[in-house]
Amino acid sequence: MEKILREGERLDDLQNGYSLIQNPQQFCFGIDAVLLSWFAQVKPGERVLDMGTGTGIVPILLKARYPKGEHFTGLEIQEESAERARRSVAYNHLEQDITITTGDIKESASIYGGAFFDVVTTNPPYMIGHHGLTGSNEAKIIARHETLCNLEDIISQAAKVLKPKGRFYMVHRPFRLAEIMSVMVKYRIEPKRMRLVQPFADKEPNMVLIEGLRGGNSRMLVEKPLIVYEKQGIYTEEIQKIYGQEVIK
Amino acid sequence: MEKILREGERLDDLQNGYSLIQNPQQFCFGIDAVLLSWFAQVKPGERVLDMGTGTGIVPILLKARYPKGEHFTGLEIQEESAERARRSVAYNHLEQDITITTGDIKESASIYGGAFFDVVTTNPPYMIGHHGLTGSNEAKIIARHETLCNLEDIISQAAKVLKPKGRFYMVHRPFRLAEIMSVMVKYRIEPKRMRLVQPFADKEPNMVLIEGLRGGNSRMLVEKPLIVYEKQGIYTEEIQKIYGQEVIK
Repeated sequence: MEKILREGERLDDLQNGYSLIQNPQQFCFGIDAVLLSWFAQVKPGERVLDMGTGTGIVPILLKARYPKGEHFTGLEIQEESAERARRSVAYNHLEQDITITTGDIKESASIYGGAFFDVVTTNPPYMIGHHGLTGSNEAKIIARHETLCNLEDIISQAAKVLKPKGRFYMVHRPFRLAEIMSVMVKYRIEPKRMRLVQPFADKEPNMVLIEGLRGGNSRMLVEKPLIVYEKQGIYTEEIQKIYGQEVIK
Repeated sequence: MEKILREGERLDDLQNGYSLIQNPQQFCFGIDAVLLSWFAQVKPGERVLDMGTGTGIVPILLKARYPKGEHFTGLEIQEESAERARRSVAYNHLEQDITITTGDIKESASIYGGAFFDVVTTNPPYMIGHHGLTGSNEAKIIARHETLCNLEDIISQAAKVLKPKGRFYMVHRPFRLAEIMSVMVKYRIEPKRMRLVQPFADKEPNMVLIEGLRGGNSRMLVEKPLIVYEKQGIYTEEIQKIYGQEVIK
């Protein structure tokens, strides 16, 4: 294991045949990434870009769930995270299926060219600027706060790299829903499907999953809410199913 | 009753001290109007405009709930509906508190002047153009379909007649949520609060209640869903409370 793990890192079994290298001092994936890669749909032969891939969790989960996807690319601006994601890819022998690019989301279109991907996924920083900023860990700050790119950067670049009728999947926070929708509409990634995620049945949502269609028409489906906990510490049946993601062939 | 009711009309007790004249052949108010006037908040001394008031149900429910509101105005393009709403107002001796104007929503700003109202409410036509059009009753068609005005007309006029920091309350259908939010943002009526309404706890929402703030900043609260039925035919406790609206003094 010496060659695989660096100081402070650990190897987590994703329970889907793959493992992930994480550094708990920096950033570990959460339920957001799991829900995003469950909400996203990848058809056989499709090319997928995950913007701001961090540890590479989303491409690895997507590859496990959609083995017939043509190729999965993760774009990450922090070289240390990108390098760690590449080691996870190598550990899982997925070099043929997953590419990790070090680069800036704001330059996606110049990195990959226009209309290149069928699907874009993103679990972007949720917080505006330095709002509510705590802690001094730079990797965490960049992952959680819009210090290096904002929502409009992400959506405008997604609109460029997506093929016409390409699909955009994002997990975000409900408090930014109006901005999310208006920016998506502005860049013609029409919101088509939304699911709010509530911690409990009687609590307000704290996450939102959204699917957009590049060049789609203006009509969307708001699905019933996804409830995380049946009661304190006990996942609902639906969340249990999501964590044991079935393979779509 | 001869002077009050015309042919085909009936008088309905609203269970709040007031009554409403309706013609069941044309258009009767539904749960949408009840939820809208419960979701809307009117502070003492505030002036309220209901755009597309139909039978006048929303101003009457609002007046019952918020007796300290300064004045309630209903704008209705169909003279027959406006005249019926005026008879309801007179029957309830509310002529000092509620004014029904016959006029076009698209001309709101020229009718009332800019920055005149503290609150705008609207239960607008939900359907785009003639989509899904059934039935030949003109009053019903105008109430349900965007034949005479569309969402952008309503929101752009609301932005004009609302004072800065004035509040906008609308009930609509979730399939148009992306358009609702992007048009609200476009006209700087920032969405601040949203509640989706589900017929049952395990069904997708079929109504959305939304509050906007003219000139507000971009941050909103998505509340927990409002569930209508506990089981078939049995309202939830919350809906029972809403139907027995308490008076806010």
